[in-house]
Amino acid sequence: MNPTTAIIGAGISGLTTGKMLTDYGVPYTCFESSDRIGGNWAFGNPNGHSSAYRSLHIDTSKERLSFRDFPMPDSYPDFPHHTQIKDYLESYAEAFDLKPRIEFENGVARATRLESGGWEILDQAGDTRRFDHLVVANGHHWDPRFPDFPGEFTGVAIHSHHYIDPRTPVDFFGKRILVVGLGNSAADIAVELSSKSLQTKVTLSTRSGAWIVPKYVYGKPADTMYRTTPYLPLAWQRKIMQKAQFMNGSNGALYGLPEPNHKFFEAHPTQSVELPLRLGSGDVTPKPNITRLGGETVHFDDGTSDDFDVIVWATGYNITFPFFEPDFLSAPDNHFPLFKRMYKPGIDDLTFIGFAQSTPTLFPFVESQARLAAAHLVGAYALPPIADMERVIKEDEAKYVGHVLKTPRHTQQVDYFIYEHDIRAREIPAGRQRAVARAAGR
Amino acid sequence: MNPTTAIIGAGISGLTTGKMLTDYGVPYTCFESSDRIGGNWAFGNPNGHSSAYRSLHIDTSKERLSFRDFPMPDSYPDFPHHTQIKDYLESYAEAFDLKPRIEFENGVARATRLESGGWEILDQAGDTRRFDHLVVANGHHWDPRFPDFPGEFTGVAIHSHHYIDPRTPVDFFGKRILVVGLGNSAADIAVELSSKSLQTKVTLSTRSGAWIVPKYVYGKPADTMYRTTPYLPLAWQRKIMQKAQFMNGSNGALYGLPEPNHKFFEAHPTQSVELPLRLGSGDVTPKPNITRLGGETVHFDDGTSDDFDVIVWATGYNITFPFFEPDFLSAPDNHFPLFKRMYKPGIDDLTFIGFAQSTPTLFPFVESQARLAAAHLVGAYALPPIADMERVIKEDEAKYVGHVLKTPRHTQQVDYFIYEHDIRAREIPAGRQRAVARAAGR
Repeated sequence: MNPTTAIIGAGISGLTTGKMLTDYGVPYTCFESSDRIGGNWAFGNPNGHSSAYRSLHIDTSKERLSFRDFPMPDSYPDFPHHTQIKDYLESYAEAFDLKPRIEFENGVARATRLESGGWEILDQAGDTRRFDHLVVANGHHWDPRFPDFPGEFTGVAIHSHHYIDPRTPVDFFGKRILVVGLGNSAADIAVELSSKSLQTKVTLSTRSGAWIVPKYVYGKPADTMYRTTPYLPLAWQRKIMQKAQFMNGSNGALYGLPEPNHKFFEAHPTQSVELPLRLGSGDVTPKPNITRLGGETVHFDDGTSDDFDVIVWATGYNITFPFFEPDFLSAPDNHFPLFKRMYKPGIDDLTFIGFAQSTPTLFPFVESQARLAAAHLVGAYALPPIADMERVIKEDEAKYVGHVLKTPRHTQQVDYFIYEHDIRAREIPAGRQRAVARAAGR
Repeated sequence: MNPTTAIIGAGISGLTTGKMLTDYGVPYTCFESSDRIGGNWAFGNPNGHSSAYRSLHIDTSKERLSFRDFPMPDSYPDFPHHTQIKDYLESYAEAFDLKPRIEFENGVARATRLESGGWEILDQAGDTRRFDHLVVANGHHWDPRFPDFPGEFTGVAIHSHHYIDPRTPVDFFGKRILVVGLGNSAADIAVELSSKSLQTKVTLSTRSGAWIVPKYVYGKPADTMYRTTPYLPLAWQRKIMQKAQFMNGSNGALYGLPEPNHKFFEAHPTQSVELPLRLGSGDVTPKPNITRLGGETVHFDDGTSDDFDVIVWATGYNITFPFFEPDFLSAPDNHFPLFKRMYKPGIDDLTFIGFAQSTPTLFPFVESQARLAAAHLVGAYALPPIADMERVIKEDEAKYVGHVLKTPRHTQQVDYFIYEHDIRAREIPAGRQRAVARAAGR
């Protein structure tokens, strides 16, 4: 009989896993602390787990983003708005009848692994429940990460997680604003707040610099032109893309930002057509890293300082599992090594879904993970021995992240095309052979 | 003795002419209806002649835009804000001591050419003044042009000339907005108003389509890479640029707009990095031309219709000379043939400055015109015979505008590099020879 399974979270990862487990006939219960599905994409999510701002559009084109088994509607624009992503997830849940398996407003308060295997779940309703297997799909973009600079800032400070629009949660009109960070949120928020119509003064501070790539190239969504192949070393392919970057004018240093402390593609690039223009128009003033805070004043690495009314910390997120005892499992500095970004060696009855920064697309990546998870749950896939898993973790890290900056933002980077091919063409068949061999007692 | 000269307007054209006449020792009086210099670039100009909106940045890079004899400060960004252009003009006026020759808040009410030659000026103060020569530099971006569609729109309608920001002169928050036109103002305003943070619904209607070019290419201001040469036919050079356009993805049709009804470069392209993205994100809905208006409803060429709260007519400007009797001189449908865009054949004591749409830059173009005007006024340049001027007007029209759409927007297009070379290397030397010959009575 297939193992009973608990899924934590009904966002993209939880929904996709639910759909796949239904396909494979695995009984499951999905615990969702909110009253709705969508997680990060449920703008204004009452559980506080959405980082979406009002103007947010996905940075992946619909063609690349769509679940492989559920394309986005033709009526959608190339880069859908968050409301459209949410609607899409709603129709996904509708089409595959996923909602009846979700317990809304009943998250997981504590998940304890039993000595004998299996899980004891304490839900938020206060009930204790038993499951054979646990799928963690609680996301990694909801627990704001703050950097630690000496001194104290006495103005208003918010994290980009709480940014909604130029009037919310702070009225930014006429303010002196410092945005810290250079990821997609930092770029979007700096652009939105630097509109001269708001009569603001916007400064952008970054530690690492970044490569800033456009959403369109030759009038087509840029990501539809990105394609890696599993038949050439990824390092070579990176090299070629690095050489071609001058074409995009994507080095932030061209617009006054610090020179990136990494080569193109060694870290997740920032997607913005507007930020270079705002920098080149003097609407956004670039600054290097912060050295210290002192009252209203912020001091920067280049010896300059300036006064600000508001700081927006667009400094990323922590990977957090509030339902685990910290000594059972945690991700200090977001370092969180997993076999195929899914399994902790030695804990076979625990699966993580969606804990990766997948380039150039997330949804099909999660589909790929969910497919392996389902095969595992029905016994059609067996994990390798612990020592092999440890070795593969190191090899994969070298492939995907070895070249990457050692910062909390970049611990989870994978290349979708390479990953998907690896799971589909190599890992699932190999796991099936292991499962057959084990069943035969070999 | 050099002729006494009246200049109408202390915007870019009037200031540049004033500076050049000072250099050449020509006495002049500049009449300015406002209390300040800058014309179009004096945001909120009390004389109503500024079309600048709060967020306006020049679409020409500072390198290309600068007067050749007065570079912009190094501290300026690549694409300065309108406040910086105004400051720059202020320091220009300061550096060349232009203000003492300007009569502020005293425009020209009527300019009448005397039978015997020379001009009678009725100023706004009510005084009648005599001058030997008149320079018209009153600009061509201040008298809003409205298209004429059947029916009536019962919502709020403004011209882009009066647009200031998303709260002024109309509170656009939450409104259903139709922007009509696809020039730079239309693109900028559609982008600004379609920010999801304003919770608006923005539609963009265009009759002609457009080529939409970025401000940066390879991380450098795109216009610094634009260079035509007088040593090859302009038509060939246009052809090459047309072939290369796929690189920029600049055809508006890629983003849902109507296919341009002209080839690239046959009309002034629209500069916007943001509009393609807003179209591709569904924030701006593209529509073809309007067929008719009916209450709140606007009907489009493709048979669709939609309801709107506000229409912004970003439909350009009329060339208007309110100080001339219409039967003396006017520009119906902006058609206004002039020798070198400066002289009306048969009227030697009248010079027009700045009446052109010069690609890729305006300020040095005006400098070039002012140089010819000054040479003319000191007798170092003589105009050709009337018949020759008529012939050259036709030849130049064929060169610059022959390929161009017959619309009011495109009657004045010239290529700066070709024009500047023509004036400097050919026309001024030829006019000097004519002047010498005439003085010698030949």
